[in-house]
Amino acid sequence: SPRTSNLRWASNLLTRSCRASQPGHIRRFVTASGSTPPPPLLQRSQPSEPPKSILIVNKHRTKPIKEAIDAFIQHVRDNYPDVKVFHEDRQDIDIPEGVEVWRPGEGAAKIDLVVTLGGDGTILHASSLFRAGAVPPVLSFSMGTLGFLLPFHIDDFSKALASVFEGKATVLYRMRLLCTFHDKDGKRSGSDGGGKPTSICLSAVILMHTYGIIDWQVMNEVALHRGSSPHLNTIDAFVDGQHLTEAVSDGLIVSTPTGSTAYSLSAGGPIVHPSLSALVLTPICPRSLSFRPLVFPASSSITLRISERSRASAGVSMDGQVSRILGPGESVTVRASLHPIPCINRSSITEPEEGREGAGPGKEDDWVRDINNLLQYNATFRSKALLRHDRN
Amino acid sequence: SPRTSNLRWASNLLTRSCRASQPGHIRRFVTASGSTPPPPLLQRSQPSEPPKSILIVNKHRTKPIKEAIDAFIQHVRDNYPDVKVFHEDRQDIDIPEGVEVWRPGEGAAKIDLVVTLGGDGTILHASSLFRAGAVPPVLSFSMGTLGFLLPFHIDDFSKALASVFEGKATVLYRMRLLCTFHDKDGKRSGSDGGGKPTSICLSAVILMHTYGIIDWQVMNEVALHRGSSPHLNTIDAFVDGQHLTEAVSDGLIVSTPTGSTAYSLSAGGPIVHPSLSALVLTPICPRSLSFRPLVFPASSSITLRISERSRASAGVSMDGQVSRILGPGESVTVRASLHPIPCINRSSITEPEEGREGAGPGKEDDWVRDINNLLQYNATFRSKALLRHDRN
Amino acid sequence: SPRTSNLRWASNLLTRSCRASQPGHIRRFVTASGSTPPPPLLQRSQPSEPPKSILIVNKHRTKPIKEAIDAFIQHVRDNYPDVKVFHEDRQDIDIPEGVEVWRPGEGAAKIDLVVTLGGDGTILHASSLFRAGAVPPVLSFSMGTLGFLLPFHIDDFSKALASVFEGKATVLYRMRLLCTFHDKDGKRSGSDGGGKPTSICLSAVILMHTYGIIDWQVMNEVALHRGSSPHLNTIDAFVDGQHLTEAVSDGLIVSTPTGSTAYSLSAGGPIVHPSLSALVLTPICPRSLSFRPLVFPASSSITLRISERSRASAGVSMDGQVSRILGPGESVTVRASLHPIPCINRSSITEPEEGREGAGPGKEDDWVRDINNLLQYNATFRSKALLRHDRN
Amino acid sequence: SPRTSNLRWASNLLTRSCRASQPGHIRRFVTASGSTPPPPLLQRSQPSEPPKSILIVNKHRTKPIKEAIDAFIQHVRDNYPDVKVFHEDRQDIDIPEGVEVWRPGEGAAKIDLVVTLGGDGTILHASSLFRAGAVPPVLSFSMGTLGFLLPFHIDDFSKALASVFEGKATVLYRMRLLCTFHDKDGKRSGSDGGGKPTSICLSAVILMHTYGIIDWQVMNEVALHRGSSPHLNTIDAFVDGQHLTEAVSDGLIVSTPTGSTAYSLSAGGPIVHPSLSALVLTPICPRSLSFRPLVFPASSSITLRISERSRASAGVSMDGQVSRILGPGESVTVRASLHPIPCINRSSITEPEEGREGAGPGKEDDWVRDINNLLQYNATFRSKALLRHDRN
Ligand SMILES: NC(=O)C1=CN([C@@H]2O[C@H](COP(=O)(O)OP(=O)(O)OC[C@H]3O[C@@H](n4cnc5c(N)ncnc54)[C@H](O)[C@@H]3O)[C@@H](O)[C@H]2O)C=CC1
Ligand SMILES: NC(=O)C1=CN([C@@H]2O[C@H](COP(=O)(O)OP(=O)(O)OC[C@H]3O[C@@H](n4cnc5c(N)ncnc54)[C@H](O)[C@@H]3O)[C@@H](O)[C@H]2O)C=CC1
Ligand SMILES: NC(=O)C1=CN([C@@H]2O[C@H](COP(=O)(O)OP(=O)(O)OC[C@H]3O[C@@H](n4cnc5c(N)ncnc54)[C@H](O)[C@@H]3O)[C@@H](O)[C@H]2O)C=CC1
Ligand SMILES: NC(=O)C1=CN([C@@H]2O[C@H](COP(=O)(O)OP(=O)(O)OC[C@H]3O[C@@H](n4cnc5c(N)ncnc54)[C@H](O)[C@@H]3O)[C@@H](O)[C@H]2O)C=CC1
Repeated sequence: SPRTSNLRWASNLLTRSCRASQPGHIRRFVTASGSTPPPPLLQRSQPSEPPKSILIVNKHRTKPIKEAIDAFIQHVRDNYPDVKVFHEDRQDIDIPEGVEVWRPGEGAAKIDLVVTLGGDGTILHASSLFRAGAVPPVLSFSMGTLGFLLPFHIDDFSKALASVFEGKATVLYRMRLLCTFHDKDGKRSGSDGGGKPTSICLSAVILMHTYGIIDWQVMNEVALHRGSSPHLNTIDAFVDGQHLTEAVSDGLIVSTPTGSTAYSLSAGGPIVHPSLSALVLTPICPRSLSFRPLVFPASSSITLRISERSRASAGVSMDGQVSRILGPGESVTVRASLHPIPCINRSSITEPEEGREGAGPGKEDDWVRDINNLLQYNATFRSKALLRHDRN
Repeated sequence: SPRTSNLRWASNLLTRSCRASQPGHIRRFVTASGSTPPPPLLQRSQPSEPPKSILIVNKHRTKPIKEAIDAFIQHVRDNYPDVKVFHEDRQDIDIPEGVEVWRPGEGAAKIDLVVTLGGDGTILHASSLFRAGAVPPVLSFSMGTLGFLLPFHIDDFSKALASVFEGKATVLYRMRLLCTFHDKDGKRSGSDGGGKPTSICLSAVILMHTYGIIDWQVMNEVALHRGSSPHLNTIDAFVDGQHLTEAVSDGLIVSTPTGSTAYSLSAGGPIVHPSLSALVLTPICPRSLSFRPLVFPASSSITLRISERSRASAGVSMDGQVSRILGPGESVTVRASLHPIPCINRSSITEPEEGREGAGPGKEDDWVRDINNLLQYNATFRSKALLRHDRN
Repeated sequence: SPRTSNLRWASNLLTRSCRASQPGHIRRFVTASGSTPPPPLLQRSQPSEPPKSILIVNKHRTKPIKEAIDAFIQHVRDNYPDVKVFHEDRQDIDIPEGVEVWRPGEGAAKIDLVVTLGGDGTILHASSLFRAGAVPPVLSFSMGTLGFLLPFHIDDFSKALASVFEGKATVLYRMRLLCTFHDKDGKRSGSDGGGKPTSICLSAVILMHTYGIIDWQVMNEVALHRGSSPHLNTIDAFVDGQHLTEAVSDGLIVSTPTGSTAYSLSAGGPIVHPSLSALVLTPICPRSLSFRPLVFPASSSITLRISERSRASAGVSMDGQVSRILGPGESVTVRASLHPIPCINRSSITEPEEGREGAGPGKEDDWVRDINNLLQYNATFRSKALLRHDRN
Repeated sequence: SPRTSNLRWASNLLTRSCRASQPGHIRRFVTASGSTPPPPLLQRSQPSEPPKSILIVNKHRTKPIKEAIDAFIQHVRDNYPDVKVFHEDRQDIDIPEGVEVWRPGEGAAKIDLVVTLGGDGTILHASSLFRAGAVPPVLSFSMGTLGFLLPFHIDDFSKALASVFEGKATVLYRMRLLCTFHDKDGKRSGSDGGGKPTSICLSAVILMHTYGIIDWQVMNEVALHRGSSPHLNTIDAFVDGQHLTEAVSDGLIVSTPTGSTAYSLSAGGPIVHPSLSALVLTPICPRSLSFRPLVFPASSSITLRISERSRASAGVSMDGQVSRILGPGESVTVRASLHPIPCINRSSITEPEEGREGAGPGKEDDWVRDINNLLQYNATFRSKALLRHDRN
């Protein structure tokens, strides 16, 4: 099946010709009987064979994006004529000529490479298209401004594509979370709360209703929030089935390391390197002086259950998409997914700087660059010296 | 050599008869060519053979501790007559009768089990005795009050000991950090700063001076601090050789997950589960609004170098022991040690509760209990309902 | 008019026979031409004449509250037969016998003393009944559990009432905030957003629609929040007309010192003593590492304007009551109200402890007690010593 | 006496010809019997007579500073020939020609205006020269880079000086703290701990030893810290004589609003507007999850007493100058000083912008500018849009 091939390809990425084998930099795992998630990992890979199909994903449809897609398609046709190009079927979008429509789900055509154009939200959206299984490697282009999940500038697309076809692409496996919902009586329920989706995007609804898929994988986080209720909600948090704490708050976030720079950060969480396998539990405005963010191993399962005595129910957001409302007694269980997202990394096209201490090929330079440039991490009083009085 | 045997025994703990093999709960690793640190891990183990030597460690010498040691030795003699009992050689202490003196270092007798009596600091001290290599499994007793690193009450010592001899002990591998110092010119230097130890305990000094050991492994953290200088220091932090940030602050902490509930927590760091392999970088009073704690994978190496333009030097504390002063240009590099501490866990003597969801043998219940009871995690406004007016 | 008399009585409290005149403890003000808010202040007062009318306020209508009200009314009749008792007119409530209905608004009967029974929310509700002008002194009773705004246990009601009639009551003036709304074009609009109240309580709506009152005074805070929108909102904050910052966040809180222990605290704000005159600006989950709570003098006016490019509008909560939605270009201006709430204080019925340094009559002991007992302020690791192992 | 004249002149600033009298913007006070501190306040003033004596203060003696001082002195001679210029007597400095030496203390010549050249630390130093009484108005010049306490660029000195002589200077009264030390038995002791000063600057020592002055006024904060002790200290904090909490931590800070952007901010404290009268208590790395910064009215007195069971003593820093060590049982009491520092404000030389809403003459624009430019307050993810990929 297409999905399995994807998996195989991805696992090639994982195990074959791992160049980044400097002691102490890369941890290697033997996953026990398929039950353990492949870890977030940074690797230089030579896929057994180059991609045969590419899916283009974009969220918005501005003129620059349209033009970039056209140029991209032309480039693929000229340089990789055997490759099939797909575009997500969305009603508000006209599929570019010479491109086939692609719909997620069981019979979906096998995709070997996903290309996104837009902001961070576009990768989140791409992830949601594959939220029930494995994801092919993802190549993400920004349209000019920087983003946390956007290693490539659109002007670099031919270079980036070449690195993939030549087997030089480096991949960062970004962990995802698998979310399972349970109703009051402990029976599994869907992420759409039984047919009452609130603002979910169309393809997701189709996916779930048509194919009966009820779990959901997220890349950033699952967030529970009181929404517009004036009252706080009360949520019991369990770790591996053990009661951890009762939270009276605006809500709770379970985040991946990738998501640690998104909502969790705003709520006061730590910044976790995306190559670590971990779950972060961050409270949102807790009525407590002593609620701190917690970091768990990726092997943990976290259950958030709305307390029977909660005054408010909780809206569930998955990567920023409102999915459903949880009432008292209802719960969501979050654990590491088996299907991380292989994100093709900027170092695929940058030559290792000579002589930089410890910087082998495929180093995580994007992340350090990003927290410094995008988050303006620790960017403060020292720049003072650079400022001059703006006199009068 | 004694050390190698220790290692072998410890590695038996690690790989043999791992009962806790529930999918998703325990990650198993195959360590590549010895270069990767064995991960913090919780395991039920049957060591190939029961311990033949026990080292008793205590920091203070109060009457209750003295009496407990006497009772403990008597118990070992009565029940495990072939086991040799050692006691750390410290000048201020008279070695109990029938017990041999033990000194750390090259010719030291092989120890199969360490028993500590006292507070959290006693385990830190035990760790420092083995700070140059592997540590035998550690059994830690509190004298009555709780502690984060103290799974057993002294009254339970016979039960706990039995669990070890019967091969039923569960072990949590607590990660340690290996610290390497470099001088201005990048040459390695000792953790005592070249013969100028400030307040280091005697055995450490002996260890280093006699045997030329210059690295040091810590269990909680390495902390750099301006100490009593009125001025802030300026420290350049590097990750895997890449410049991360320049910190102007009171200091910086590199902590293990174990240490995340110690100094790092006070400085605003997150609480990290001890079964995760990770390094936490937490600033102490930074002159910046945007300095947040960072969590790195255990494969990272973090270098902290005092900037040439730092107004103050930095005192280095290793698990709370002041070791040396770093001046401008000098640095310390911190990475995961190959030798975590196998801490024998409370679940060794507790029967798994029947029917508790997800709670197999050897679950990390101690940690949830500890953050709730010891840190009073999130213990706040809800208890309000329990309070009554203390009228008049 | 009734309101003016209230004011006069309140100002008697303020200026007459101020016993708490220890140097350094109480600041005295001469308010310039009525334009400066009377400061939060703690004073022992002898009102010129004892109250002639009492308004009973309760939010919930449980059996214990009903019984307490009955007992209270009986007590007033027996002991202060000339005093008129009123009860707020709410549809879901039957007015106790012998008590007159009271409705806020222009023709409302003059009230000399407000008595509340219930939780902290009851005082907030009482404040909202007088949200357009001055508030008579408030005597607040809890039904047994503690609360931040609840100095008296219900069993002490006769004692507390006596202190008022005997002129021995001490008053803490709790600052309130006056909120003025403006639409896109800078024209003043109502707090109900032009007839689209969302979940506002009935009396408030009546008040505004009948009498055209469009400003609103709050005791805790004004909070702007994205509510159930998945998107962050963008709010421009101005201080005294000067642009302070652009906030991209879940929302912003402008809080009184009283409210600093409510929502603002959960969002990370400092705890501000209620006898200080100040405004606290606290962000809710800002997309910024460097957004810190700000404390302004009570003379400041803070304007929060939804940016034209905000992706989400903002729901406005006033003391936890959702009042209206602000869209792009709309704004709310918050400043200290001229009408703080005179809250009768626990020290009214406690005898000053002899010999306690600095503790004159009317000291703010409630507050220290409350942050320790209710918030469990700094209540942590030291209690460790008290815990014993719960063995097995 | 000189000091009284200073006071009179300062109080002229305070009460005469207050132009900034817009309702709601400026609070006016009548201080009761001299016992209440004059509040931090922003005022346009016309001193009865122009200054007759100027004291130049500088901390460092770089070439640019030397040259600036020479130019300044020349300018005064040319334009204000009757004005006497003084320079602080410090051993490491040669007094510029034509300038008289000035020493703090009882017989010191009366100073009408203090001029500082250098960084923020220079104003702190100037404050320490007048730490026993009132301070004349202070005019602070930076040497090019910005600083929180540095309204004027050195190139603007003639303009700034003119504003003072023409009576157009605006003053922000920055609150100071008065510190009183007590030994174990409650007897007052000196800030130098009875002749054991640790690193105090010379003039301070002279001041105290010669004139028996034992209290000290600070502008930023009093900080207690464990210094280089490996152990935490235990400090009992009292407010107005009432026990507030027992702090186990690295230390505690009592800060002014001015100091809220200094050490207190690094330790996690809120930013408090300098025109507010308040005390901020901020813990440094507390062993507690629930210790939050507290803001008290300026009328409060805060006592910090080292607990008898503290494992470490505490070094006391006053505005960054180490003054003494407090051992178990010893304490410091902090309260608002009667002598705030009149800091001449940038708006003295800027014309009010026409039409800016709410911005009368003398508005606190410096502060908003400073927290934005210097602290990069909330300066984060929005600037992202401005960044472009730094390609390759
Ligand atoms: N108060 C807050 O900080 C809130 C944050 N969010 C975040 O927004 C995400 C959804 O993003 P969009 O669909 O783009 O919505 P959006 O267009 O509202 O963007 C949210 C912002 O988050 C950034 N972002 C997204 N993922 C990120 C990551 N992993 N690291 C750093 N920045 C990241 C985006 O670049 C964008 O600036 C959610 O997954 C959630 O994490 C959602 C609600 C509130
Ligand atoms: N401001 C702070 O919080 C400071 C904390 N420390 C910590 O003290 C440790 C040394 O401990 P001792 O020798 O016992 O000195 P100590 O006797 O001064 O005790 C420090 C406290 O930390 C607790 N502690 C130690 N390790 C812990 C852990 N892993 N998790 C939770 N609590 C823990 C101890 O029980 C004790 O209450 C250092 O490793 C450092 O982490 C050291 C200096 C300052
Ligand atoms: N995440 C949070 O912390 C949120 C807090 N709130 C707060 O709830 C308040 C409304 O209260 P209720 O009507 O009683 O709603 P509620 O019944 O939902 O209670 C909120 C809680 O806040 C407490 N509280 C109220 N005022 C307080 C104060 N000044 N200091 C300390 N605790 C206080 C109450 O005792 C109650 O425990 C709002 O003014 C807002 O401050 C509202 C929404 C979210
Ligand atoms: N970890 C930290 O943040 C520490 C901060 N300090 C602060 O340093 C001050 C002494 O300053 P210096 O003698 O210049 O020593 P310094 O030369 O070591 O400078 C400390 C830094 O604080 C800045 N600063 C001083 N007062 C400030 C204020 N009110 N607002 C904003 N920034 C301010 C200075 O510009 C300088 O950048 C102390 O009063 C204390 O507040 C002292 C020790 C540690």
